[in-house]
Amino acid sequence: MKPLLDLSVYLVLGPQDCPGQDPVGIAVAAAQNGATVVQLRDKTGSTKEQIELAERLMQALKPFNVPLIVNDRVDVALAVDADGVHVGQDDMTATKARELIGPDKLLGLSVSTQDELDTADIAACDYLGIGACFPTNSKDDAADVGMQNFAGLTAQSQLPVVGIGGISLANADQVIKAGADGVAVISAICGAPSAAEATRKLQEIVKSVKDLG
Amino acid sequence: MKPLLDLSVYLVLGPQDCPGQDPVGIAVAAAQNGATVVQLRDKTGSTKEQIELAERLMQALKPFNVPLIVNDRVDVALAVDADGVHVGQDDMTATKARELIGPDKLLGLSVSTQDELDTADIAACDYLGIGACFPTNSKDDAADVGMQNFAGLTAQSQLPVVGIGGISLANADQVIKAGADGVAVISAICGAPSAAEATRKLQEIVKSVKDLG
Repeated sequence: MKPLLDLSVYLVLGPQDCPGQDPVGIAVAAAQNGATVVQLRDKTGSTKEQIELAERLMQALKPFNVPLIVNDRVDVALAVDADGVHVGQDDMTATKARELIGPDKLLGLSVSTQDELDTADIAACDYLGIGACFPTNSKDDAADVGMQNFAGLTAQSQLPVVGIGGISLANADQVIKAGADGVAVISAICGAPSAAEATRKLQEIVKSVKDLG
Repeated sequence: MKPLLDLSVYLVLGPQDCPGQDPVGIAVAAAQNGATVVQLRDKTGSTKEQIELAERLMQALKPFNVPLIVNDRVDVALAVDADGVHVGQDDMTATKARELIGPDKLLGLSVSTQDELDTADIAACDYLGIGACFPTNSKDDAADVGMQNFAGLTAQSQLPVVGIGGISLANADQVIKAGADGVAVISAICGAPSAAEATRKLQEIVKSVKDLG
């Protein structure tokens, strides 16, 4: 059965995002404090290292019922029986990813333009990641789409949407007000003095805007 | 059914090995002139690019009955239904790779020490790649094991062995004399003025040493 999907506070991380720290420690602190999804996005490790890290994350997140989603690497996801996969436009197609992971796993797709939204295989996916919402340094290739475009794309989406890119405590409310179901962050949690506190505050912001809506 | 495996002349290549040339053109020239296996080892492309290249190689090699094996990336292999996978010590374990690709695909494992040979999951694999046979610039991490060690490891192998690392027209005979079933090369074909002619000569060398034995 597919894991329940709550996109509210969606932590994306890999070794490159927390030099000198164990990503598992950050993921656990986030999961304990309201993170609803963790995505492993490892752009540096060997396949062996990525699988070992994914396995440790799976074990560590299990008690919190927080699904682990693997970015891009369907092989790593299959090797550890992760809860899902997230693909971008430079990765395997969503159609093929769904074929390989089967019907019981979560699948997310990154979209940043009208054309990408129009051609997305919606039937294969469980949610869309739309962005970058704001300028960001965490991903080289992500020009921000602007809040107006973000709201427009989100309004057209037939799937739940998580905003991504440059989201912080200072602007997370705008993303939810623009129609997103949640916020995906890297540095807002990984780069915070306390991952626990940052997650707690993000969860509060998301909840308070949703309660208003 | 598992493809027939003839390790005699085993071409390993990726975009990084033939700048300015199409890897598919080199692979076809090699397949037309006696290459018996082609391995895609793409260390630079995005997943999307790797899949597109693997698909083109699959199509191009089909008329020659030359199997395409994908290095490391089980996801890419599964996406294009490639003939097999080759894993190294920094990749997914052979055990797990076999589980994911099923019984009908070829699986190779790189081994370069006695310990790696002793702990190899032989039952999961179809062949071993042993090396580096000679000093090489094509792989950063490959110190050569020396011909004496190579012969010792090869003699103990319960599986067919392809030698790899620094093999050229000038030394390929030594690798077969040391007990290998074939030679795996990158630059001896990709870096040759004529991939076709280099492959033809390698095939002749391998055959003539085997005929003697």
